[in-house]
Amino acid sequence: MRIFIAGMDGYLGWPLAVYLACKGHEVAGADIFMRRKWVKERGNHSATPIRSMRDRLGAFREVFGKSIAFHVGDLRQYEFVHHVLGDFRPDAIVHLAEQPSAPYSMIDIDHAMFTQTNNLVTTLNLLYAVYDLCPDCHLVKLGTMGEYGTPNVPIPEGFFTIEYRGKTDTLPFPKQAGSWYHLSKVHDSQNIAFACRSWGLRSTDLMQGPVYGIRTEETQADERLLTRFDFGEVFGTALNRFCAQAVIGFPLTPYGKGQQKRGFINLIDSMRCIELSILNPPDRAEYRVFNQFTEIFSMVDLAQAVKEAGEKMGISVQVAHVEVDPRVEAERHLYEADHQKLLDLGLQPHRMVDALEYILRDLTKYKDRIEAKKEHILPTIYWSKEKREAAAGLRLREVALR
Amino acid sequence: MRIFIAGMDGYLGWPLAVYLACKGHEVAGADIFMRRKWVKERGNHSATPIRSMRDRLGAFREVFGKSIAFHVGDLRQYEFVHHVLGDFRPDAIVHLAEQPSAPYSMIDIDHAMFTQTNNLVTTLNLLYAVYDLCPDCHLVKLGTMGEYGTPNVPIPEGFFTIEYRGKTDTLPFPKQAGSWYHLSKVHDSQNIAFACRSWGLRSTDLMQGPVYGIRTEETQADERLLTRFDFGEVFGTALNRFCAQAVIGFPLTPYGKGQQKRGFINLIDSMRCIELSILNPPDRAEYRVFNQFTEIFSMVDLAQAVKEAGEKMGISVQVAHVEVDPRVEAERHLYEADHQKLLDLGLQPHRMVDALEYILRDLTKYKDRIEAKKEHILPTIYWSKEKREAAAGLRLREVALR
Repeated sequence: MRIFIAGMDGYLGWPLAVYLACKGHEVAGADIFMRRKWVKERGNHSATPIRSMRDRLGAFREVFGKSIAFHVGDLRQYEFVHHVLGDFRPDAIVHLAEQPSAPYSMIDIDHAMFTQTNNLVTTLNLLYAVYDLCPDCHLVKLGTMGEYGTPNVPIPEGFFTIEYRGKTDTLPFPKQAGSWYHLSKVHDSQNIAFACRSWGLRSTDLMQGPVYGIRTEETQADERLLTRFDFGEVFGTALNRFCAQAVIGFPLTPYGKGQQKRGFINLIDSMRCIELSILNPPDRAEYRVFNQFTEIFSMVDLAQAVKEAGEKMGISVQVAHVEVDPRVEAERHLYEADHQKLLDLGLQPHRMVDALEYILRDLTKYKDRIEAKKEHILPTIYWSKEKREAAAGLRLREVALR
Repeated sequence: MRIFIAGMDGYLGWPLAVYLACKGHEVAGADIFMRRKWVKERGNHSATPIRSMRDRLGAFREVFGKSIAFHVGDLRQYEFVHHVLGDFRPDAIVHLAEQPSAPYSMIDIDHAMFTQTNNLVTTLNLLYAVYDLCPDCHLVKLGTMGEYGTPNVPIPEGFFTIEYRGKTDTLPFPKQAGSWYHLSKVHDSQNIAFACRSWGLRSTDLMQGPVYGIRTEETQADERLLTRFDFGEVFGTALNRFCAQAVIGFPLTPYGKGQQKRGFINLIDSMRCIELSILNPPDRAEYRVFNQFTEIFSMVDLAQAVKEAGEKMGISVQVAHVEVDPRVEAERHLYEADHQKLLDLGLQPHRMVDALEYILRDLTKYKDRIEAKKEHILPTIYWSKEKREAAAGLRLREVALR
């Protein structure tokens, strides 16, 4: 199949391109390297020393004898989107070209505005270009489990059938997202569902949980193929952050009581879920939602698992709760979320507990790079003035770094 | 109270400023006259010959001996929003500063993008400025009943309590909006609810149905105080459009079968609802939703009512269905929507049937202005290529204008 990856330079985009190309698909992608810029803007870097796209593409060709097409360009420009899709005429598009960090979106109004407009504009451009050029193309969109928030009822996969005052309907499950970033994904989901209803487009919206891991089978073949690995407060996902902390002997820092539960997924499984979505497209006019995670853990569960894995390897791991959770979120809540549809399509999930040792071992190679930026791990971005003031009172940073 | 009106030059904004100032409130507002520009861009004009803001403000001072403060500026610029709110420190803000037309948003990608980014950015600016400057201020936001779409269950006022798989929660009612414009309001609602949850802001989101009418008690005092009255396919609301058609002997044109039902509200009641919301603010951190309409009619009900009112005045009124509904929407559907909360606060609704004669009589004065732009009444903007093609096949325009 002809698969276009919007945002091919990112944490998911690059290993996905390699994975799909190795599976025999014809892969093309675009990126303007914003993720590299944002991480640099925050003063941080990837734990893994990632190569330029030119080097990555060259290494891929060298190792696998295949090519991936790549376009440098800004997907906020409709002319660019129209041009690259018109050229390539994909059967499927995987849309990863968004600002993906909740803390980044909460820095200030400029970052909030950037996140929401960037994500909205990119998605609208893709919808219009697909409708104009290749209306049969399947748009696979990366959403987030965070769109749902933490309701006190089980979370279905996108839709639920309810009876209300004597009538019945199947409705989109209500969204209660917890940051400007998560809200941007809610806006996207709404826009995409409308394009499917009105224009007959087809789309799979993947409500993904936090992804963890570094290596995939394919990128393991050559260090130049490695994907990025962020470990700071802004772009590091919870488990990746904990692993990086463990490796440099920095205490793991669940926020608040650490009872927040989320659904996690291994990078390898994330690639496979996207492939399964592509191989099993929805009908025309269908807007389909899959919840893309494999295991639910609380933050203290995660910390405990990393601690145990570290100790098996002879690393002593401390856990020190960040007393003031920088986010406005429920610290105790129900979390019963369906995640059956991708299993039904054939997903065979990896277990987190089996992956931790590999992640820690890999990261040990990049210990110095993590050490060099360890001041970027603890939270400095707060969801509200109240949170910021409460944290300032506690002099968090000094206490935890002692 | 100190009330700031964002979008003070529009159909609702201007009579609202006059109404609230006459009630003794201190009123300030801002606008950059975009509505005038959009209507002109589409080649149309207001049926009522509206004055410049300078003339309006002068006439108001002359007639009522009071002042309304006004700032020309773009609410997409945070510095401007921050400046005017910092100066005025309102107790309440009425946010009307959005592109309000579904057809306008469906013209092409540029209009879709403009509508969604304009509305999103303006609302985010107001939220950040309120949080920074006057977090106790009550944000009264004009949403639309169109956010809900037409589900097969009754529509509550914003939230519903449901049991799902043995658990119970009160959740936002799902949204299934029918245009990029309606979706922009859904995005706003999501963003505002988040700001209330996270920052402790207070807001009332008014899910308003189509508004009809021209005069309010106050603007009746002097013709220079008249608000605009749009009657074209782009900015004319259904009933206003039908009244304009009746006055020039143009057949009323329900779309498709005309069984689409909506909740309507008189301009006078709309002003009163906004006032009632302001006088009864929600608590801090509360995001409150009122459904703001008074009577539900189908499009054929409306056409019939206008026909009868016209005939009482000796105007012969024809009804000619536009065979292809230009919108993608359910032409037959359930529509049971609550609208109790504003009644509980004291709203005494006007009945549409009593208003029609006044509207028709008023419009008769501006018959020539409607006649001059009658080619802008029939639909030319289609929700999808399929709709456009179906309509082209029928040579709609020629048939209906015959």
